Amino acid sequence: MAADHMPRRAAIIGTGLIGQGWAIVFARMGWEVRLHDVNAAMLAEARALILQQLRVLETQGLLDNADAIVDRVQVSASLQEALQGASYVQENSPESVEIKRALFSELDALAEPHAIIGSSTSSIPASQFTEHLAGRHRCLVAHPVNPPYLIPVVELCPAPWTSPEALSGARDVMTGIGQKPVLVRREIEGFILNRLQGALLQEAFRLASQGIASAEDIDTTVKDGLGLRWSFMGPFETIDLNAPGGIADYCRRYGGLYQSIGASQGDCVAWEGALVDALSEERRALLPEEDLAARRFWRDEKLMRLMRHKQHGDNNG
Amino acid sequence: MAADHMPRRAAIIGTGLIGQGWAIVFARMGWEVRLHDVNAAMLAEARALILQQLRVLETQGLLDNADAIVDRVQVSASLQEALQGASYVQENSPESVEIKRALFSELDALAEPHAIIGSSTSSIPASQFTEHLAGRHRCLVAHPVNPPYLIPVVELCPAPWTSPEALSGARDVMTGIGQKPVLVRREIEGFILNRLQGALLQEAFRLASQGIASAEDIDTTVKDGLGLRWSFMGPFETIDLNAPGGIADYCRRYGGLYQSIGASQGDCVAWEGALVDALSEERRALLPEEDLAARRFWRDEKLMRLMRHKQHGDNNG
Repeated sequence: MAADHMPRRAAIIGTGLIGQGWAIVFARMGWEVRLHDVNAAMLAEARALILQQLRVLETQGLLDNADAIVDRVQVSASLQEALQGASYVQENSPESVEIKRALFSELDALAEPHAIIGSSTSSIPASQFTEHLAGRHRCLVAHPVNPPYLIPVVELCPAPWTSPEALSGARDVMTGIGQKPVLVRREIEGFILNRLQGALLQEAFRLASQGIASAEDIDTTVKDGLGLRWSFMGPFETIDLNAPGGIADYCRRYGGLYQSIGASQGDCVAWEGALVDALSEERRALLPEEDLAARRFWRDEKLMRLMRHKQHGDNNG
Repeated sequence: MAADHMPRRAAIIGTGLIGQGWAIVFARMGWEVRLHDVNAAMLAEARALILQQLRVLETQGLLDNADAIVDRVQVSASLQEALQGASYVQENSPESVEIKRALFSELDALAEPHAIIGSSTSSIPASQFTEHLAGRHRCLVAHPVNPPYLIPVVELCPAPWTSPEALSGARDVMTGIGQKPVLVRREIEGFILNRLQGALLQEAFRLASQGIASAEDIDTTVKDGLGLRWSFMGPFETIDLNAPGGIADYCRRYGGLYQSIGASQGDCVAWEGALVDALSEERRALLPEEDLAARRFWRDEKLMRLMRHKQHGDNNG
């Protein structure tokens, strides 16, 4: 089931934003893509929305063949037709155990015998919707970040019964399409990415709730401080380089300080009530609600420029 | 004491890496800089080391007048001479309450009457070394990130007796030299930046200690995932844009998930013993100890390229 022996055809099931993003990721690397969605109206517009996003990427210099790419993306009226000949299936249905259980029954029954089936779920472990399947060994979570064509990390999280072959096959597929797969070795709530994000957010909410800093200053501390190195090095490499003798030396020097800080970070602050009202008021003063949509375009353009920057010459590590 | 009425002369006391970095930040924006260090050998080589760093910045296209900049940096044999005429003083002595208490006594006695005195300390609140001073109202923490000429955030943390005028004066100075000051409203261990970094690191160590993911995969999750947006938006703006109705909507949708994740993040993992041994072994397999120095050059070059990228055209928000 190694990726280089598999036909490069992917079935994308569920064609909302995430499904559209996956279609772009596969198709721009030369894969044939078949789209299907139970919602006929969404399916009907999916290809046009994909082309729209490809045009933006083209304008930003991140690809130069939007038409050729969208030509590889075809709509399938039935699930069976979408799955036919696909070596990899990516499921993008709503975050509901019931929906995913039912859909995975169909996917497992209809997909090619050796196809690997990944779920985009950000919060439901695969064991909750694949246990009953004959082909549960070939199912796992492949959680992307939105939009996957600009943010390459993909969390692969196997269920206890996912086979090593399916896992390594999924990793090969993800690497082959230019994504960055990481392995979540055991099922855990929030996987890795949202656990890391949650830990930092908890401290951000805690600081705000205690009146230590404004939301704007907390954001500045990350975007003009911590986030710069983290955009090309992870937290472990960062501290590994921040002490003469590497990470072990860093832990000796600063472990005590961080333990002491950590001891005051145990309590969770609830993200509700007056705290959220105050944060929302501050954000709306900085960015009125009617400007949210425009700011999302700004964010995506910043991400595209950052991607282009990383592609051009200096992404050697 | 508004910045535009102050003479643009800074005294940098303590000329190790951080002091050198501050000299560059001030001098490149046109300030006159006077350096002093009790260690005569360090002081003697400081200006040459500053020029060396300026040359690298010049090579990377981040400035074009290294010689003119270093001309504004002068060495003072005595503390008194360094402080004469300086409207702003930045202290960069070792992280010791005793050393800082003694040094601040001298600084307060010798500095110009209206000079503001900032400390680069990353871990000692200003109240611990300024309480005894006649001029304690003009003292505060101004904590930079290394190197400050590539990472602009500066944490301003007043002692209880720091005057509003000194605080706003320090903010004006920092803004005037192109840094990004943030206000830590009350003294708290680790200020903001290291508390946020610590929260994320604690979860990273926790995931590693539980065998959920490798250090390499945790790093990938940040550098190819979370860190991309965080390099131009903070955590609050990120979630504000990640729900249709903004941050309040985000909290309604995902607050429960993050509370549940947070409930399993309370325990601190000690950064020692077998855990650190295993992490160190993994890092040394990825990057042998003899390559640490070269990798630090790589990191600084990546930061410089990122700075240039942010300067060129798209840093409009």
